[in-house]
Amino acid sequence: MSHKSLSEFKHVLVVGGGLIGSSFIRACREKNAISSIWVMEQDPVRAKRLEDLAISDRVLGADEHSDVDLAAIDLVLLAVPPAKMTSALEPLLPYLSTKCLISDVGSIKEKIMQDINSILPKGMEFIGGHPIAGTENSGPDAGYASLFEDRWCILTPQDQNTDAAQNLKALWQILGSEVAFMEAARHDLVLATTSHLPHLIAYALVGTATDMETVTKNEVVKYSAGGFRDFTRIAASDPHMWRDVFLGNKDAVLEVLERYIEDLTAMKKSIRWGEGDVLLEQFTKARGIRERIVDAGQETDVSNFGRGGDGQNDEAK
Amino acid sequence: MSHKSLSEFKHVLVVGGGLIGSSFIRACREKNAISSIWVMEQDPVRAKRLEDLAISDRVLGADEHSDVDLAAIDLVLLAVPPAKMTSALEPLLPYLSTKCLISDVGSIKEKIMQDINSILPKGMEFIGGHPIAGTENSGPDAGYASLFEDRWCILTPQDQNTDAAQNLKALWQILGSEVAFMEAARHDLVLATTSHLPHLIAYALVGTATDMETVTKNEVVKYSAGGFRDFTRIAASDPHMWRDVFLGNKDAVLEVLERYIEDLTAMKKSIRWGEGDVLLEQFTKARGIRERIVDAGQETDVSNFGRGGDGQNDEAK
Repeated sequence: MSHKSLSEFKHVLVVGGGLIGSSFIRACREKNAISSIWVMEQDPVRAKRLEDLAISDRVLGADEHSDVDLAAIDLVLLAVPPAKMTSALEPLLPYLSTKCLISDVGSIKEKIMQDINSILPKGMEFIGGHPIAGTENSGPDAGYASLFEDRWCILTPQDQNTDAAQNLKALWQILGSEVAFMEAARHDLVLATTSHLPHLIAYALVGTATDMETVTKNEVVKYSAGGFRDFTRIAASDPHMWRDVFLGNKDAVLEVLERYIEDLTAMKKSIRWGEGDVLLEQFTKARGIRERIVDAGQETDVSNFGRGGDGQNDEAK
Repeated sequence: MSHKSLSEFKHVLVVGGGLIGSSFIRACREKNAISSIWVMEQDPVRAKRLEDLAISDRVLGADEHSDVDLAAIDLVLLAVPPAKMTSALEPLLPYLSTKCLISDVGSIKEKIMQDINSILPKGMEFIGGHPIAGTENSGPDAGYASLFEDRWCILTPQDQNTDAAQNLKALWQILGSEVAFMEAARHDLVLATTSHLPHLIAYALVGTATDMETVTKNEVVKYSAGGFRDFTRIAASDPHMWRDVFLGNKDAVLEVLERYIEDLTAMKKSIRWGEGDVLLEQFTKARGIRERIVDAGQETDVSNFGRGGDGQNDEAK
């Protein structure tokens, strides 16, 4: 499958064929973005599955990098958990052209940028990327072509005016994303708030609830529709990936987590002392930010995304 | 509109025509559950809206209780926020038959039970109820007939073998709910875990994120798809209702909240000290409880409820 492609990239290698990697491949194919796309997958079961799915032009296993011609690859996209980025890239470097651009899809940017740059040969360029899109599912079967449509993709180039940065931006735009350039450190702080902290508190809640199950005998699961269920969805996300994120973005995560524990402790005090007015004021403010998110087009205002009756509230009014 | 009804209740008065009250009315009508259904709504704007919607046989305003014949009512369902239950019910009591059953839909049960029983005349019976169903929206327009279908409704009668308890159970079953009998105190502890704590931590997160906006200049809203967005949905729930819930279920909420803060603080320590194995173990456990919820039929395993690309995860693997 070689044909006229829409982007400046012709031969792309995606390393890691999981949710994001396989969605990227599917999207590239559907949008006719590049001429040929290969995927490298270390896990033999996943590699076999990728063969069967036949979404890429070629599937490479863990040791196949020396057997194939990688010199024509003009973009390598690393789609493995943050802590595996360098070990996935390093064996490929001797076979890649120095003109080949390296990018990634990791949820943290500063640490990945440091890690990759420390192993890159002189002349090769890395531009960090982070498509803010995904689901709680993982693996090659979880991916789909429209995953990035109308979603933000943040790129963290050192210079956003280079051809490489502009070409990478154009590629993500072809896949349907809105692209923003941002400094890596700023990305990490923003995402610590919008993504890392929410996942952490969801994981902690599931832990607390599991302990409460010893008291409530399965009733937490049974009556999970009261709000808990939505947290378990978030907490069902890939454990390895999230471990890497929290450890790899430690400073920003600890910063927002400390603020959060302070806020939660203040609410605890308000409940203990019966400060209804304080609680009401805070809860009312929370509605405002929801409206801004709906206005910003990052969410539908359809109740429960049209699911109906999912039990977010339990009450009249 | 008077016809043969499926339940033992013939003339029902719903007090409060918001999300749950109006859904109950719509469901009763669609399922042909009762002969006639009235709604009493103190808020004149909502009362007018309920008139226009014409989902009930009659709409009563705040002062109309003495003008109409309430003696034939055999079930009063209180669908107002927990702290307003007694003030909503008390003016009606002189006009109700002592055979009339009083029930409610409140998210807390022990306090409401105490409050209502303290004003009930001798011979009248109250049975607490809590349909675990809802959305983040409120008001007469937010309701819909299928809200209670395949959802649990918890009833907290003092004796579950009375006709009243069985009739009330049958009514909720006609509306599509699965009914469970439970002690009020146990209900409050279970729901503190599955519902009250999740809402509280969502409210707190929105507060933290709002403070972070001063640092990140709107980027929290812009990149909310990373997980934060789902919390704002939960935190968009009715503020008055939730204030009442937290203050009315203070002991159980403080109990689970304290456990939660302990768990969160332990995670913070693991992040600070780089204890990746501890984090990985906890995150992996969280997936298990998710699977149990899907198995229990309280959730679909379709990714993001079929929405696609909503950004729960931000990463490959």
